[in-house]
Amino acid sequence: MSKGTGTDARFAVVPVGWVRTGRDDPGDTDHWGAVESEIEIAARFGERCLQGLDGFSHVEVVFLFDRAVEKDDYATPVRPRGRADLPEVGVFCDRGPRRPNRLGVTTCRVVSATGRTLRVRGLDAVVGTPVLDVKPAMREFTVADPRQPPWVDRLMTDYFRD
Amino acid sequence: MSKGTGTDARFAVVPVGWVRTGRDDPGDTDHWGAVESEIEIAARFGERCLQGLDGFSHVEVVFLFDRAVEKDDYATPVRPRGRADLPEVGVFCDRGPRRPNRLGVTTCRVVSATGRTLRVRGLDAVVGTPVLDVKPAMREFTVADPRQPPWVDRLMTDYFRD
Repeated sequence: MSKGTGTDARFAVVPVGWVRTGRDDPGDTDHWGAVESEIEIAARFGERCLQGLDGFSHVEVVFLFDRAVEKDDYATPVRPRGRADLPEVGVFCDRGPRRPNRLGVTTCRVVSATGRTLRVRGLDAVVGTPVLDVKPAMREFTVADPRQPPWVDRLMTDYFRD
Repeated sequence: MSKGTGTDARFAVVPVGWVRTGRDDPGDTDHWGAVESEIEIAARFGERCLQGLDGFSHVEVVFLFDRAVEKDDYATPVRPRGRADLPEVGVFCDRGPRRPNRLGVTTCRVVSATGRTLRVRGLDAVVGTPVLDVKPAMREFTVADPRQPPWVDRLMTDYFRD
């Protein structure tokens, strides 16, 4: 079933917009839930690129942790945030910013969508973060109550808390 | 609050793995829900890169629609799939593959995670699709019941249906 490997493939991505927010510390791991941010979409997308988004309660924002540094070693499992009370997990079992390709994906509440300015609540990205995509959060793509191991509750206790 | 514009920024992304599946038609828009696929993670990530994922019911897969062609014009709203019964919406109000950066994000059920092979259900990507990231679906990042306009139900009727 496999179709070639293309192990040397690489692709270029270009920001479609940038984050404006008062948050400026990439090491900030708490209280993102009430943060309101604006995503300013690039001028080339025109004034109607967000048309229809106000009909959705949420959007998925794909962004790039451009102030994170990739790691030299992704093959060795590590404890999230180095916390001794959390288990060693593989790089694809953690959502931390120091990851291959440095992509972040967060579902945010839509506050308003006007022209090229999308105002959202709950985006865990600092000022100036490049945004690579915005997608409407469709119910068909949503999982209501995913199962997760107990350590996640400890990791995430204050992350989105107001 | 804004921090520079960097409008000429671009970033390179490198596949972390590839999709294996029997589906090979990028124009296929229906019945993805029951499709089982494998994501074969690249060898450089080692045999423990998925460690811990079996504790999660779902993962988010970020992939690249590499067989889609970008559009010349993203500024003009269009009807999803060109369907006359759907409204004209902006490019960021649709999830179609012909989009800036061609990124897809889909939450899939974890079937198994063994070594570098992640078996999932419900991944709407054809064989050979480059995978850019895999993240555990954490409840704190999930929205249980997003609000969406009625046209989405018409668009998505058969998309994930078995």
